[in-house]
Order: sequence, then C-alpha cells, then structure tokens
Amino acid sequence: MQIAMVQDKFVPVEQLDAAYFDRGLYFGDGVYEVIRSYNGRIFALDEHIERFANSLAAIEIAGVDVKEIRGRVQKAFDRFGKLTTGAANIPDAKIYFHVTRGCGPRNHSWDNSLKPNFFLIISELEDAAELKTKGVAVSVYPDMRWKRCDIKSLNLLANVLAHQDASKKGCFEAILVNDAGFITEGSSSAFFQIFGRALHTTPLSNNILPSITRKFALKAALNAGLELVEKSITPNQARTADELFLAVTTKDIIPVIKFDGQPISGGKPGKYTRQLIEEFRLFTA
Amino acid sequence: MQIAMVQDKFVPVEQLDAAYFDRGLYFGDGVYEVIRSYNGRIFALDEHIERFANSLAAIEIAGVDVKEIRGRVQKAFDRFGKLTTGAANIPDAKIYFHVTRGCGPRNHSWDNSLKPNFFLIISELEDAAELKTKGVAVSVYPDMRWKRCDIKSLNLLANVLAHQDASKKGCFEAILVNDAGFITEGSSSAFFQIFGRALHTTPLSNNILPSITRKFALKAALNAGLELVEKSITPNQARTADELFLAVTTKDIIPVIKFDGQPISGGKPGKYTRQLIEEFRLFTA
Repeated sequence: MQIAMVQDKFVPVEQLDAAYFDRGLYFGDGVYEVIRSYNGRIFALDEHIERFANSLAAIEIAGVDVKEIRGRVQKAFDRFGKLTTGAANIPDAKIYFHVTRGCGPRNHSWDNSLKPNFFLIISELEDAAELKTKGVAVSVYPDMRWKRCDIKSLNLLANVLAHQDASKKGCFEAILVNDAGFITEGSSSAFFQIFGRALHTTPLSNNILPSITRKFALKAALNAGLELVEKSITPNQARTADELFLAVTTKDIIPVIKFDGQPISGGKPGKYTRQLIEEFRLFTA
Repeated sequence: MQIAMVQDKFVPVEQLDAAYFDRGLYFGDGVYEVIRSYNGRIFALDEHIERFANSLAAIEIAGVDVKEIRGRVQKAFDRFGKLTTGAANIPDAKIYFHVTRGCGPRNHSWDNSLKPNFFLIISELEDAAELKTKGVAVSVYPDMRWKRCDIKSLNLLANVLAHQDASKKGCFEAILVNDAGFITEGSSSAFFQIFGRALHTTPLSNNILPSITRKFALKAALNAGLELVEKSITPNQARTADELFLAVTTKDIIPVIKFDGQPISGGKPGKYTRQLIEEFRLFTA
C-alpha cells in the first residue's frame, strides 16, 4: 500500500511516470555528459564517451554499453541536424545526457537487478562570440563539493549554490576555493592563469573534473608556444595574473577580464587568450 | 528546437513528464524529509517540519509554505490510515517527501520565477523488532560527502556508495570517517558510543545531519541517567566502546553488536542500549 502526492494532489502510484522513482532524483545516483557540435560535427565525442565510461565505473553503474550510448548520441544528433537544416547555417548543438542507476524503492544501497535509465536532450547552443570578444567577470566561492569531483555525477548542489552566488554578484562564473585556500576550478568550468609565457592550471586529481576542454586548451597552449604549469594557486595570486580564462565545453575558451573585482589584463581579453581562442578554433574547424 | 530520448526511444519533448526537467534530477537541487508513525500517529512532525524549513532556507528555495507542507503530510497520512484500517493493527508508516527548486532549462543558477515541486510517498514500514533484539554489524567507510551535511539535500551519492560498501560486507550500515580520522555519523543514521555510563556522539556542526532521532536518543539517555558527551571519536576508540548503537527515524534505536569486525558488548545488544530502546518507546506510545 502506497500513497503518493505531486504538488497538492494525490496521484495513484501506478500512474506516476517512472521518473518519480528514479534514483537520479532521490540520490543524484547517476552521471552525465555535456557535448557540443561545431559546424555540424560533434566535438571530441570519443573523449566524452571515455570520461562517461569512467564516471559510470567510478560509481559502479554496470550493464551500460557505452558504444550503444555513443550510437544514441550520434543518432539523436543526426536527427537534430535533419530537423534544423534548411537554415543557411547548421546551428551548433548542445547535447546533454545522463544515465542513472535506475528506478526502485528508495534504499541507499542498490540491487544489481536495477536497470539503468538513459535520458538525452539536444538543444541549439547559444552563441558565445560576444563573451569571447568582451570577456567575463568571475567571483570566488568556497569549494563545498564532495571528495570525488573527478566523477561527473548528478550531485551538483554545491556547484549550483556557487554559480547562483556569482550570478547575484553579476559574474559569469564562480571560481571555487578549497579549505587550504587554493583554487580548484570553476563551478562548471576549468580555470586557467597566464603569467608571462606560462599557462597555469590546477593539476588533475579527485578534486577537479578531468575537463575535456581543459585538455584541448592545454594542447592549444602548447601549439601557441606557452609553457604549461600544472599547479594550484590562491585567489591572491590569481589577481596578479597577466591573463585569466575559463574553459567549458559549450563555449570553449572564455577570457576573464575581472577576478573578484580586480580588473585583469587591463579589463580586456589578453593577447595569449585571444591566440588560444584561435588555436582552439583550428581543432573545431 | 529540442530533441529528447528516453532509453533508446525518441520522445517528443512536449510529451515528457515535467519530472524530466526537474532540477532535483539534474542537480539534486532539493531537500527532503523522512518521517514515521507509531501506533497511528506521526512522530515528531513539528521537529521534521522545522528541519525541513531550515534545509529549504539553507539552499535558498523560497516560496514554500511549510505549514502547507505540514498539512499535506497530515492529509496524506490520514488517507493512508483510512485505506489501511480494517487490519487489527494500524501499520506503521514511512513518509518520504521532497521539495525541489522546480523545473526549467538546465542552468546551474536559477531564476526566482521557478515554482518548487513537491513530491510525497507513504509506504508501510518494515518491522524493526528483530534488528533491535539481535543488533547489527557496521563497517567503516571514508566520509566523502560535501561540506554541508547539515542540509538534508538530494545530493546523496557519497551516502549511497558508503551504504553499498557496507551491504557488500554484510553490514547494516557504514560509519563514516573524515579525513582527520574521526567518525562523523552513519551513511543514513546517527551513531552513538557508550563508555561506562557516558553516552558519546559527534557534536552538531555542518559535518553531520541534525538528526531528530539523535535528539530523542539524547533525551532518552538523560532519562536513563547517562552522562552526555558530544565529542568526535576515532574508529579505534569506537572498537573499545562498551556499547554502540545507531539512531534512525524509521527504526529509532538499533544496537550495534559488531564494529568493523570487532564484537561489541559480547556480540549482544548492551544493557544501556536496551534501556534506551525502552525509554524511546515511552516517547512514541
């Protein structure tokens, strides 16, 4: 015997969509990816699928064929392309998908008989050209996340609260600072600092997401002749950087022109950052 | 233009249940409570509603009238009672409910125009008598949770992984241990240690849930003449306790008879624990 309510109405349990019994909702018990296309092609699909497989394994969601997931992503993207052609340009697409451990009674531990749930949604991507030209302001916020930020899981409340704080301050992103006083990454982006000809960023560990765009940003930096330094820095050090930028799947490289109120590189996108944007464009052409 | 897939099928976006756009699913952006009844009456409803209000405030979900939530809980419980009477005994009920920030496009920061979603489900509660008589074994696991465990949020993946580890080891619960080597609490319970006539438990902070059952367990302990010590201890110290027990809403006090492989109080529920179970029963009669 079970009774359910949605908002202020009783709903027969058997009429509830399976989504109401999804462990993704009860526990955030699932992992996700966000992928984008450039010029009608999905960018770095293999890298995203590989990371997704790692996330699934890390939280022990078994029985998911990532090749099948890859196929679904491609199939949905192809359909999106067909439905949106006719326009002069193929719009860039944002592809979100997640797999949760499945639907079942709300018990913390799970039964291996659960069937994972897949959900995908594709939308047109907003143009980031103005952000790249003008740059953005960022604020700082305590990193209150869990100890496995390398897993791209649906437990994102700490990120949400950080990002909302940035929004309230009129900033584009919150840069997270851990208890030891070091920057980890943005609430939904990787964060980079340029000092002279050296590009600094946080080393990979359990404390940050192994960002795909970070990987390509580092490759772009090597192509631009910059030296790479994987090292954590403090907000006070970041304030003195020559240039700062963010890397995020949906927009790749975004110049930061103000850090916690401090203008950076004269309040304009810096020269190396602009060069990296161009280098990155070569990967996506 | 949006395209959605559920499992391997395309689904028109407009046919998807609102639940697929719930920030509770995308981010775990919501808070919940679990309440139970004893003998046909909801236990500690005011305390749970007060904690729920605190959780809502902590993550800035506005526009929820907790008095209305209280009314819905009572109404659903009354209906459950009517549907289950006829049996010789009124079955004990488990009431789960959550409020998420609402449905909307997947952006980390939120728009204040979002309408929070309420979901509630009541089920019959399993009987805990045997657990109380026989006691349970617990294992230890790293506390990988975020820094606001005082908020009863839907970000529970760390708890899920901990509990699963305990299940694999044949244990009833995982006792979480922080980086400093101290016990915080169970993955879904409060944890108590008895040394002589002193009852030890972790002090309230951002690192543990302000458990309602903890509060009543401490009251029961005072009634039983035990001394209260709010202090964090290590697993090695816990192994030497005279008695150990868990406190959890759905089962109140559960004796622990084995801690990380070490038999406790001779492998049987200890005398003070049994006394506290009786004291607790007086609150629920």
